[in-house]
Amino acid sequence: MLVNGKEYRTVWMEGGTVFMIDQNELPFSFKVIELPTYEESCHAIRNMTVRGAGAIGATAAFAMAQAILQAPKKGRDEYVGNARYEIEATRPTARNLFYATERVFNAWNGSAEKAVIEAQDVADEDARDSRSIGKHGNELIRQNDRIATHCNAGWLAFVDYGTALSPIYNAHRSGKDIFVYVDETRPRGQGARLTAWELYQAGIPHLIIPDNATASLMGQGKINLMIVGADRIAANGDVANKIGTLEKAIAARYYGVPFYVAAPLSTIDIACSSGEDILIEERDENEVLYQTGIDREGNASEILVCSPGSHALNPAFDVTPASLISGIITEKGIIDANEESIARSTRPSMKR
Amino acid sequence: MLVNGKEYRTVWMEGGTVFMIDQNELPFSFKVIELPTYEESCHAIRNMTVRGAGAIGATAAFAMAQAILQAPKKGRDEYVGNARYEIEATRPTARNLFYATERVFNAWNGSAEKAVIEAQDVADEDARDSRSIGKHGNELIRQNDRIATHCNAGWLAFVDYGTALSPIYNAHRSGKDIFVYVDETRPRGQGARLTAWELYQAGIPHLIIPDNATASLMGQGKINLMIVGADRIAANGDVANKIGTLEKAIAARYYGVPFYVAAPLSTIDIACSSGEDILIEERDENEVLYQTGIDREGNASEILVCSPGSHALNPAFDVTPASLISGIITEKGIIDANEESIARSTRPSMKR
Repeated sequence: MLVNGKEYRTVWMEGGTVFMIDQNELPFSFKVIELPTYEESCHAIRNMTVRGAGAIGATAAFAMAQAILQAPKKGRDEYVGNARYEIEATRPTARNLFYATERVFNAWNGSAEKAVIEAQDVADEDARDSRSIGKHGNELIRQNDRIATHCNAGWLAFVDYGTALSPIYNAHRSGKDIFVYVDETRPRGQGARLTAWELYQAGIPHLIIPDNATASLMGQGKINLMIVGADRIAANGDVANKIGTLEKAIAARYYGVPFYVAAPLSTIDIACSSGEDILIEERDENEVLYQTGIDREGNASEILVCSPGSHALNPAFDVTPASLISGIITEKGIIDANEESIARSTRPSMKR
Repeated sequence: MLVNGKEYRTVWMEGGTVFMIDQNELPFSFKVIELPTYEESCHAIRNMTVRGAGAIGATAAFAMAQAILQAPKKGRDEYVGNARYEIEATRPTARNLFYATERVFNAWNGSAEKAVIEAQDVADEDARDSRSIGKHGNELIRQNDRIATHCNAGWLAFVDYGTALSPIYNAHRSGKDIFVYVDETRPRGQGARLTAWELYQAGIPHLIIPDNATASLMGQGKINLMIVGADRIAANGDVANKIGTLEKAIAARYYGVPFYVAAPLSTIDIACSSGEDILIEERDENEVLYQTGIDREGNASEILVCSPGSHALNPAFDVTPASLISGIITEKGIIDANEESIARSTRPSMKR
């Protein structure tokens, strides 16, 4: 996607070196960093220089290939095996990471070249799936639509294009005039920071809104479509996503605004029968009590924004029931958020 | 109400001097300032040292009495008349302000003592009405209730007790175990700053939550009552209040959580037939793009929290339709949010 008018992916590999956009610096400064070794790529996953399921998966695939390239002739298998464990330990809850290392490891079979090709394939497939989501999702978007989104499910969370934002990019590129309302997404502000940055770079008209304003804009008829991403989709179509998604889905239903979830089929967890099985992670209260940004001199700064002495509750996700979801935009097309439709779409024959 | 274990009002007058809690310093520091002249009291209204309908009204009443006390014998009427215009010009959209200056001016009739007594009456009536709201609202609160509130409709916005928080204070004082979820209330954070500060001072168990979390907590059965304040109530029961109120009311309806509005009858604007007649004020985008707080050294600081280059929309209020409101808690009792009930409650015979 475009940054300062030039095409970038979130992460890529050239000649054994991994390159990535430093997401810890965004949106206040744009930097591409070089990671010549798998150890440095691991560090970048750990310290969240790269974030988002797809982008982490691709980085892990590249790191696995880097380890194979780095391995000494003597003790090669042991070196690569240890590296694999190290890569998988960087963010142990990210499922894509294990899928990626396994694919590259299995493709290797003594040929470093095959490992590198497989790692590129992992990244390319992620970008291709995101692009397909954009193509299918664009069918929902009409000329002059005003679309709301929550959190960041853009290209920065994947290798390219993203999920919730991919249909928006596709609509914009196909010449439709659209406008995007970007929920701030407290407490971490992924909407105000990452989604707004992406849309600004792509030249798509948008405004950041406080999370509190979405229902009011829907009531005034100023939003006629909402698209969000997903962290995990249960077998019955319930969707776990960033805190606030549920509140927006309820408001959308109240005002009759179509509410879509965009995600690759790999986000569906068939082993999870419904949203009730999804545990909601509670994060550190300091993410609510303090806010990070840049001060007047342009330096990174953290300030206390709440009453001293009070504590905060910081649930990271919520679960939106399938009944509130108009459809799930996948790389294979738009499917209904129900058990039958999901089972049909995730049958082996439908998988890549 | 209690601050560091001592009883305070938001604003009061002793021997011609007005005292008030400096709300520009809250919640990070607690200061009481002295205003010996009406000009200084006017300045305090203008620069928002004092805020909230009831507190502004009482300050205006005191300022009017101060002007009468300050007036020279020669040219006394002109001096007082000019002062009245000056007071009324401080926050020309605050209706209470005109009501307050008029009452004190009319009571004056050449006797400065009568003006002072009338100003005290204005403040006392505000506190008494808030206290009555607390008494009536407490009837809705059961042992172990977990109550959500939005923005700050506490005693800092009035002379004492407040509106939405008054039933909570009353329940706490009457020995009920209650817990309060405090919506942060972006962009200005009145919940995280003022409501949390009030509850902490009163020793009432509470947690600050991101605005995005309310629906999720309702869905988990963790909130069983919501009480908010009101900026203006239309004749049909539609309620204008801080942005986000509507979204919470929709979520409350979806989950069957009772949603009450607490406000004195003076908040009802009979001339306004429905919420459609209420214009929603848009405030400066910088309230969304920047955030104020205190840095690690304890100094006031303002930081950019959004992507540079993007703009924000900052609607200050929204309108919640009467159909979503379980009832309005007034100083005369709890009334239904509909035209008939409101007309009955605001008939002259019901007014004080």
